[in-house]
Amino acid sequence: MPNDSLASWNDGAAKEAILDFVRRVTAEREPDFVPENERIAVFDNDGTLWCEMPVPVQAFFADDRLKALAPQHPEWRTTEPFKSKLAGDMKGVMAQGIKGIAELAMATHAGMTTDEFNAIVREWLATAKHPKLGRPYTKAVYQPMLEVLEYLRAQGFSTFIVSGGGVEFMRVFAEEVYGIPPEQVVGSTIKTHFEPRGGTPVLVRDPELDFFDDKAGKPVAINKYIGRRPIACFGNSDGDREMLMWTTLGRPDGRPAFGLIVHHTDAEREFAYDRQHVLSGQLDKGLDEAPGYGWVLADMKNDWKTIFPA
Amino acid sequence: MPNDSLASWNDGAAKEAILDFVRRVTAEREPDFVPENERIAVFDNDGTLWCEMPVPVQAFFADDRLKALAPQHPEWRTTEPFKSKLAGDMKGVMAQGIKGIAELAMATHAGMTTDEFNAIVREWLATAKHPKLGRPYTKAVYQPMLEVLEYLRAQGFSTFIVSGGGVEFMRVFAEEVYGIPPEQVVGSTIKTHFEPRGGTPVLVRDPELDFFDDKAGKPVAINKYIGRRPIACFGNSDGDREMLMWTTLGRPDGRPAFGLIVHHTDAEREFAYDRQHVLSGQLDKGLDEAPGYGWVLADMKNDWKTIFPA
Repeated sequence: MPNDSLASWNDGAAKEAILDFVRRVTAEREPDFVPENERIAVFDNDGTLWCEMPVPVQAFFADDRLKALAPQHPEWRTTEPFKSKLAGDMKGVMAQGIKGIAELAMATHAGMTTDEFNAIVREWLATAKHPKLGRPYTKAVYQPMLEVLEYLRAQGFSTFIVSGGGVEFMRVFAEEVYGIPPEQVVGSTIKTHFEPRGGTPVLVRDPELDFFDDKAGKPVAINKYIGRRPIACFGNSDGDREMLMWTTLGRPDGRPAFGLIVHHTDAEREFAYDRQHVLSGQLDKGLDEAPGYGWVLADMKNDWKTIFPA
Repeated sequence: MPNDSLASWNDGAAKEAILDFVRRVTAEREPDFVPENERIAVFDNDGTLWCEMPVPVQAFFADDRLKALAPQHPEWRTTEPFKSKLAGDMKGVMAQGIKGIAELAMATHAGMTTDEFNAIVREWLATAKHPKLGRPYTKAVYQPMLEVLEYLRAQGFSTFIVSGGGVEFMRVFAEEVYGIPPEQVVGSTIKTHFEPRGGTPVLVRDPELDFFDDKAGKPVAINKYIGRRPIACFGNSDGDREMLMWTTLGRPDGRPAFGLIVHHTDAEREFAYDRQHVLSGQLDKGLDEAPGYGWVLADMKNDWKTIFPA
């Protein structure tokens, strides 16, 4: 039976699995019926809803931001990790370890108010383009997944992002691009503090990590922010493994649950990567475990008619 | 013009202010119109939606839980702060300082899975009764505020709790009692961690504070969890001062905004307390600032026809 809701999906096991699951949980008086308030679906962002190659979009943002700020920071010319980064010497950056990466992130993401940060991100997204795809990052999103989001919402689901990306970065575009409002975006956070500033209160972004929403942090964040166990989970890497487990395995409530992994198999139309791609977006354990745990693999090359919106 | 939506409110300035604000932001084509997705209203819980006297409900829970656990912990008979607490010696408990209070909280709130904790709270709420009011805590809620919640939602608002109370404690009853689903409950959190437990994954509650959602923490939590600035804020104590400020003062978006403080003035039907009540629920600065900031005071004795649901 054709279903136009997922028009960019080729007929096949992945598409059928999505439609079948939704049919089961929305059919009243059937044993698998789930009431609307419990129809929570969670989506990773980088690599699941939009392109994360060659590096996650937020890394491009940090790069551009660093260059824009460099003139105000002459000391960066002689201080690591800024020196290496501005010289395009990634080996030099890596030599500084995770501390160096964190310093770059904080220099570009902290020290301003939340309103100022939102404006900076909004402005950047309006003009920046993906280096290989040649389109704005907000158009480097996956059309088949946009259709899944819309289809699930039409069927009474609430759709949440649960991503390692910065929550205030994603909230700038998630509502317009994905139809996901700020209060349904869960992500990594840095600390902020409140300042009354004489009747014009602000929140200031501090250079300290608050929470990194990846791997085993994802179920923790789901519980903290959403407070309900999702019945559907969409990811693409081993960073999503624990939230896939939390969604689909050993549920004491006996609810049916659905897990799907977007498998990047299309070097021609997008990028092909899985086990070998260790920097970010690695999919290794998930490939081994998917069959046993019943997680559906969406093969981008074969399952998706189109990758990006027109 | 009578409005039955707030039937338990006496006609007067407070009721009129609520109705007037809602009329202004929902009237299309008027300058103060706010689209539905931005109609965020935040509510403190203790003392704003339910009774917090003589101590907040969660403290009663901790007490009962400590007594229930005591037989398994013979060492508590000789170790502070447990020894004093079990002997009913509050002076002895206080002598242990904030560290002692935290130890009591962790002993009763941590060390189990999130599912186990939910079941414990659910069971307790089903039988426990308020010592003075003689009714279940879930019926020691304020009827006029239930009406405000329902009225706002009928007018396209999303209603959130933003409370110093434990988020997993409140989520057990907030949906049934207030019509507020788990994902719209923001509160204090303790750390949790994910354990796969051989295919039956759990989240374990650890004895460490993650975030205390009070005072200047409230705007921080609003930004982190909701990601949008509320246009209406309801509180009752100086713990709500910063989120009232964040809602109503110096908004760069120019949105109209509303702040209301529930003032506990009714010793006969509930409790009367404000400036002198320093332990919790103190309302001191808020009383001074309300007129200047345009925050509405709801005088429980004069503005509320009834306090509790029948």
